[in-house]
Order: sequence, then C-alpha cells, then structure tokens
Amino acid sequence: MGEIAEPPFPSIAIAGLGLIGGSIALGVRERWPEVRITGVDRPSVLAHVLGSGAVDRTETDAASIGEVDLVVLAAPVRQNLELLRVLADGPATRAVVTDVGGTKRSIATAARNLPRRIPFVGGHPIGGAEKGGFGFARPDLFAGRPWIFTPDDNVDAAVVVRLFRFAEGLGARPSSMPADEHDRAMAFLSHLPQLAASALMHAVGGAVRAEEFPLAGRGLMDTTRLASSPADVWRDICATNADAIGEALDLLIARLTDLRQDLSRGDAIERIFAEAARWRAELMAGRD
Amino acid sequence: MGEIAEPPFPSIAIAGLGLIGGSIALGVRERWPEVRITGVDRPSVLAHVLGSGAVDRTETDAASIGEVDLVVLAAPVRQNLELLRVLADGPATRAVVTDVGGTKRSIATAARNLPRRIPFVGGHPIGGAEKGGFGFARPDLFAGRPWIFTPDDNVDAAVVVRLFRFAEGLGARPSSMPADEHDRAMAFLSHLPQLAASALMHAVGGAVRAEEFPLAGRGLMDTTRLASSPADVWRDICATNADAIGEALDLLIARLTDLRQDLSRGDAIERIFAEAARWRAELMAGRD
Repeated sequence: MGEIAEPPFPSIAIAGLGLIGGSIALGVRERWPEVRITGVDRPSVLAHVLGSGAVDRTETDAASIGEVDLVVLAAPVRQNLELLRVLADGPATRAVVTDVGGTKRSIATAARNLPRRIPFVGGHPIGGAEKGGFGFARPDLFAGRPWIFTPDDNVDAAVVVRLFRFAEGLGARPSSMPADEHDRAMAFLSHLPQLAASALMHAVGGAVRAEEFPLAGRGLMDTTRLASSPADVWRDICATNADAIGEALDLLIARLTDLRQDLSRGDAIERIFAEAARWRAELMAGRD
Repeated sequence: MGEIAEPPFPSIAIAGLGLIGGSIALGVRERWPEVRITGVDRPSVLAHVLGSGAVDRTETDAASIGEVDLVVLAAPVRQNLELLRVLADGPATRAVVTDVGGTKRSIATAARNLPRRIPFVGGHPIGGAEKGGFGFARPDLFAGRPWIFTPDDNVDAAVVVRLFRFAEGLGARPSSMPADEHDRAMAFLSHLPQLAASALMHAVGGAVRAEEFPLAGRGLMDTTRLASSPADVWRDICATNADAIGEALDLLIARLTDLRQDLSRGDAIERIFAEAARWRAELMAGRD
C-alpha cells in the first residue's frame, strides 16, 4: 500500500454514530482532515458527537443528507435496511452507499430490489469491541483489522477500488467475498461465539450465587467477555442470518451433547479437546 | 496478613511438577529459600525441573518420598487418587497431605476411606493458565488469586491454619468451603467455561476453512482461549464431577436451544443478553 494522498470520497455522510460509525468519523478526520463529514443520528447522540468535533454537520433525518460522495450506513442491520429505503426515495444522488453491518445478504438483496437501484457495496469492518456507543469510538479501531466488502457481480469495479482505498486509509486490510460466503463464515467466526458467550454467562449467573463470583478464574472472564454486547445489534444480526446461525448453533449443541453423554468415560473429551486445541493453534498462527 | 517469617512446612514434597506443582516449587523457593523441596515425577520432567533449581531432591516413586512436613499432590485428579493410596500404604509419616485438583469430593472421599487415614485437606488454587507443563510454571502464578481449601469437619484446625499460611506465602487468598459446594460452584465457574470453549472451537474449526480464520475478530479468540487446555487434566475433572457438570451443561444447552428457536423474532436474545450483561457486570465488579 503506497501513500494515499487524495481522499477517495471528498464528502461523506455517516448514518449511525455508535462505536463503528463514530470510529469511522474519527478515523477520516485524522487521515483526511479536508473531508466534509455529515453525521446522522438522534439529537441526544449528535450533541455528544458535535462536541467532539468528529463531524462538520448533523442531520436527524437521512432524507436530508444532500449531495455527498459516500453514505455509510452504520446503524443496526435492520435500521440500515430502512435507511436504504429512505435514500432510494430521496432525490438523485451521486453517492456510493456502503454499510458496516455484521450480515451482508439481507442488505444486498434490499439494495438490488429497491425501486431506484442504489450504487451499493456492502461492507463489514471486523474489529468491534464489546462496548457499543460513540463514547468508545476511536480513530484506530480498524488498524490492522480485516474489512470485508461483498460487491455484487455487476458493480462498477472502480467503486470497489475507491472503497478499498477508503478502508486502507483507516488502517484496515480490505478484501472482498460473496455475501453468502461472508454470512456463513461469520455465523461461525463471530455470531456463534457471541451467542455462546451470552448463553454461558446466563447459565452461570442463574446457577451460582454472586458471592461465589470472586472464585472464578480468568477462564470464565475471557470466555464471557462478549456477554456485555448490546442486544439490539445482535437481534438484527440473528434475524438476518438465522439459517446460517441456526446451523452453527446446532453444531455447538451437538458437541456439548457429546460431552454431556460421556463425562464419566471421557472419550468424547479426549477427541473434542485434541481437535479443538489443534484448531485453536491454527486460529492463533501468525497472531501475537 | 502479617509478616510470614517461619515457613509453615520446613520440608515439602510435590508430586507432579506441571504448571501448578512447578509454580508451587518456584513460589516456595522464592518465599522460603530454606524449605527443602522434593519433586516427584517422570524422569523426563525431573531432568528439566532439576536444571531449573526448583527442587533439592527428586524421586520417581511417591513411595520413596520419606519424612516431610507437607505432601502436595499436583498430578491430574485420578493420578492424585492413586498417589494417595501409595502414601497410605507407605511407612508412618508426620506429613500433612493436600492436593491442588480442580474437583474436591472424590479425593476427600478417598482420603476418608483409606485403610490408614491420612491427615488430608483438599485444596484448589485458582489461577491456572491454558498452557500446562513445567515450562509455563512461575513463582507468582497464585498472586492475588483464590486458593480454596475443603477441610472435613473433623480435621485439626491447626492444620488448616498452616495450609492457609502456606497459600498466603505464595501470594494467594486462602478460603475454605465444603467439598460439595466447591464442586458445584466450580462446575459452573470453571468446568462449564472450559467445555464450552473447547466445544465452540471444535464447532468452528469443523465448519470453517482455515483460510477464513484470519477473518475472525478478537471475540472468537477470547472465547476460545481455554481450548488449548490439556485433555488429560479435564478428563479427570469431568469424571470426578460428572453430576454437577452434567447439570451445568444441561443449563447451557437449554439456553442455546432457547436462542436457536427464536433467532428470527429475537425475544430470547433480548432476554438472555440483558440478564447475561447484568451478570457479566457483577462478575467483573471490583476486578481490573
């Protein structure tokens, strides 16, 4: 990656200024100070965002975004579907539209089927944190992290190139893959760990007295770190990737059932632990 | 906790010099350099341990430990049960015996039922790591961590006091509770997270191509950190706490099934995530 001088999008609008949208605003500010940024969110959020200097202009209604070069949809997945409809109903615009949602099939389908077809390329920057909200946003959130784009076959390649440059400018490592492959991979790599962590914390919290929590070691703490995640984001992700997540949950339940039925003999433990340790080593290969 | 001048046990033997046993040897060396330490393990392990200076004397047979003030059983749980039998069959000894296994009922029962009753108090220092073996041992492994003892009602209180001083000397925070309460609490706080992490890594590794692993975020990595744990240790823990772990697994499977059946509507997600986030906050209260 060489020097990225010109901003790929001289003006952008970000709808939804939580952790991801806020971090994009802060990252753009730092990388390309000349880019004009419009923030769209509820008034209570915008007051906080304006005070930080992360945006130049604010709107509470996506229909009023006006002419910009890039619109980033950064609300929970089903709000992004709504925002897409608002943009399609609005006046003609030159804007490329992308999103940052954790599932990609539903919004790609929506973009294809809108009355006025929007120049849309779905995106998914990987590198969230368990705490949501603008208060946790930071310009380096994407540094060194994957940013997956899921362009349709008929999308203009030049648009994808500009989005790659945009992601690189924020320090991310952009790549592209089909939306269905993305959703299946993420069902296992991201959505299943989240559901497992929340279900685990729920099972433990419901069974153990809080006075005994101090007896927990680092293991429980690491394994349940994701259990602080906000429900609204995950409700949308599950609803728009239910088939793939269902398959992933079935597999996890099957492995837990194997362990459950063989606690005394331990053959399932031996087999599952050995393979899990091997995959864990592959997962960590090349990371810290 | 005041100054701990005199070592509570002037001579000790440690059977099993993996992560925990090795860290006890290193911790005793640092805290009470005058204590004479005998290490018992396989010759290949002992060569490594002797080279590190962590022990004064080595044995490959627990029957040859001789007269010491404390014997620490630090092998996997079912090997500890075997070692206890060896000690009972051996010559008279003044030694207090403790263990460091992750379950406490089975060894307490074994100690009570041996032909010659052993002055035994079970123990469980919490603060392992996912990597086993003497190579990962360190003197501060127990610093600031709980060390639970599970004395029978009829045990001499002075013995428990000495073991508390021993644990404090290694930087741990000793406490005591009945063995059955320990095993039930640990089924949820320690054993369930371990099984969940290994089952999760197994489900993910079996479904996703290794080329896609780099797309995983920190969430999967944290949630599966425990999946490197050695199977032999966990096989013994599961076999000796199968009833409580079975109950814990049933609860986790029930919560995952709730989520599975409600992915599209999301009411289970809303409910489980909200409670899990609350318990997660309680778990972390007062830590870092």
